[in-house]
Amino acid sequence: MPSTNFEKPHKRYNILTDEWVLVSPHRTKRPWQGKVEDVDEEQRPQYDPKCYLCPGNERMGGAVNPQYKDTFVFQNDFAALMEDQGTAEVSEGLLRVQEERGTARVICFSPDHSLTMPEMSVDALAQVVKVWKREFADLAKDPQISNVQIFENKGPIMGCSNPHPHGQIWAQSSVPNEIAKRTATQVKHFAETGKSLLGEYLFQELEAGERIVCENDYFVCLVPFWAVWPYETMIVPRRHFQAVTDMTEQEELAFAEILSKITIRYDNLFKCSFPYSAGMQQRPTDDQDYSGWHFHYSFYPPLLRSATVKKFMVGYEMFANPQRDITAEMAAKTLRELPEVHYKQAMH
Amino acid sequence: MPSTNFEKPHKRYNILTDEWVLVSPHRTKRPWQGKVEDVDEEQRPQYDPKCYLCPGNERMGGAVNPQYKDTFVFQNDFAALMEDQGTAEVSEGLLRVQEERGTARVICFSPDHSLTMPEMSVDALAQVVKVWKREFADLAKDPQISNVQIFENKGPIMGCSNPHPHGQIWAQSSVPNEIAKRTATQVKHFAETGKSLLGEYLFQELEAGERIVCENDYFVCLVPFWAVWPYETMIVPRRHFQAVTDMTEQEELAFAEILSKITIRYDNLFKCSFPYSAGMQQRPTDDQDYSGWHFHYSFYPPLLRSATVKKFMVGYEMFANPQRDITAEMAAKTLRELPEVHYKQAMH
Ligand SMILES: O=P(O)(O)O[C@H]1O[C@H](CO)[C@@H](O)[C@H](O)[C@H]1O
Ligand SMILES: O=P(O)(O)O[C@H]1O[C@H](CO)[C@@H](O)[C@H](O)[C@H]1O
Repeated sequence: MPSTNFEKPHKRYNILTDEWVLVSPHRTKRPWQGKVEDVDEEQRPQYDPKCYLCPGNERMGGAVNPQYKDTFVFQNDFAALMEDQGTAEVSEGLLRVQEERGTARVICFSPDHSLTMPEMSVDALAQVVKVWKREFADLAKDPQISNVQIFENKGPIMGCSNPHPHGQIWAQSSVPNEIAKRTATQVKHFAETGKSLLGEYLFQELEAGERIVCENDYFVCLVPFWAVWPYETMIVPRRHFQAVTDMTEQEELAFAEILSKITIRYDNLFKCSFPYSAGMQQRPTDDQDYSGWHFHYSFYPPLLRSATVKKFMVGYEMFANPQRDITAEMAAKTLRELPEVHYKQAMH
Repeated sequence: MPSTNFEKPHKRYNILTDEWVLVSPHRTKRPWQGKVEDVDEEQRPQYDPKCYLCPGNERMGGAVNPQYKDTFVFQNDFAALMEDQGTAEVSEGLLRVQEERGTARVICFSPDHSLTMPEMSVDALAQVVKVWKREFADLAKDPQISNVQIFENKGPIMGCSNPHPHGQIWAQSSVPNEIAKRTATQVKHFAETGKSLLGEYLFQELEAGERIVCENDYFVCLVPFWAVWPYETMIVPRRHFQAVTDMTEQEELAFAEILSKITIRYDNLFKCSFPYSAGMQQRPTDDQDYSGWHFHYSFYPPLLRSATVKKFMVGYEMFANPQRDITAEMAAKTLRELPEVHYKQAMH
């Protein structure tokens, strides 16, 4: 596609959600006089006696963490979802309520309080992938669970209340909005063509090249054509499969490797511990036919200009449409050209 | 609806967007150890020589503001939308681009740099309503404009880069996502029943009472049953009309009055200048039949627990579903019971 199409304001179509994003490339020239965030420069110890995720420490509610060596999973002490309720749907006129059953778990990625994903070894990350697999399998087999959402909030700016490296799983009895959208488009495309929508898209992106950030034998990391967040990326497997549980051992390792590569690039971008929310996007678990689903893993990072200036998704974005300032191509080029060695490592 | 349905995690249906929100009332018991925002306690002068919105000052780009007495509208110097482009749709394989034409304007609500909406008089707010009317009419008559989005970002936490009281208008050649959703549901309901969806909903809410915050002869302010943001509210006119331009003079004044009432309550909630994004939700302007549309005006405020602790819409919310901690009923009760005199005024 000729890049002259991208110089003026335009909209791009998201094939997975059937929605548009407004792109205003010239807007980066706008000087920023607004809010500036704090940089999180705290040097953290490997063990923090006050951290409720560190090995051996007591959690709110009294449970004591084991002396775990790699990962550790427990039930969220303040889960947004609970088991054992009726799931009746009640409606009264125009008010509709549906009870929601489920469970929430916390996954500590490492016993070392001072680490974050980009600072962990690929082997340690492969352990995390194995745990995601195990937890997804365990929750998916529950007939009351229709969706298992695996995600990570990283950094105080992303509402993360504890710097100890960890992620979460929220599993629930219905299929949430965002997954429903991605299911509708992928299932439809597969029914019509017998092909994976995301697989075909990946093929096109590999041909074009300009939005690719990094790749290995099994996965490609790219800035989606329709990215909303300034440095949003998506990891897509070359092979068409539906969930983390479908990964072979080679894929597990390759996934760990690409997670390491992209998160190191992120930290290197503004030389800071780069905040984001990351989420695993995969088939629902209510045993319908989801052959069309193509696993992906996305990063939604808020920073735009520097370690301290983020993109605000407010006013227009909330009431009308997501809007971005830099193009996906600009973001991909910047990320692609960054070194694959973590800046802290490079300083030694 | 029996309130026992609301004590455990449940989902509520948004009749206007056809989406669900997850409500987890017990989650407020969770202690907060995460990010704490700064309170914006700066005392501002009535005139700031460095503010590019104050009367008589020079803006970026060289234009000089007039010595305006009530409101002042100008074209945004860094507009996300521009006029005079082709609006061709281009697609290449799975990549779809649509050029977007449009314009963006800034509306200064008052020449007084130190004020915010809750501190302005109802008469001054009525002037703002008149300007919204005029600007909407002006932009709507342009055959190239399909949607006029009027909004306000208030407070640094909402990406507002200048405290001078002001709002924005982004007008564009296509209908954005959120307006498209609200159009689909309302037009469908009207086609099927000949009645306003929101009008029927309002009737039901007035009967129930528990989500009403305040009202006058022409407008009702309530916490929608499906609210996403902790203290989200919506102003709905009792009369079924489609756009701000349909307001009678009495309605203009009554709208100004209810804007004053709700924003004063907001400031009183945590005794701070309460941040929010507010948006006017009204029919598109591409001259189709939008009889089903029922004008509304919504506030999406981020604060949850105090002047410094907000709700983070991250991880689960981004990848799965919006989720809230307090119920709409709890929020409405809290707002309803707050005084209607601004706390700064009350101190005198
Ligand atoms: O135009 P402003 O106030 O500079 O910018 C603010 O509002 C815009 C519209 O909601 C957003 O796109 C920006 O991210 C935000 O910082
Ligand atoms: O569960 P946490 O990490 O305490 O909380 C964080 O993640 C949740 C899931 O995305 C959000 O609902 C919260 O607003 C956020 O602060």
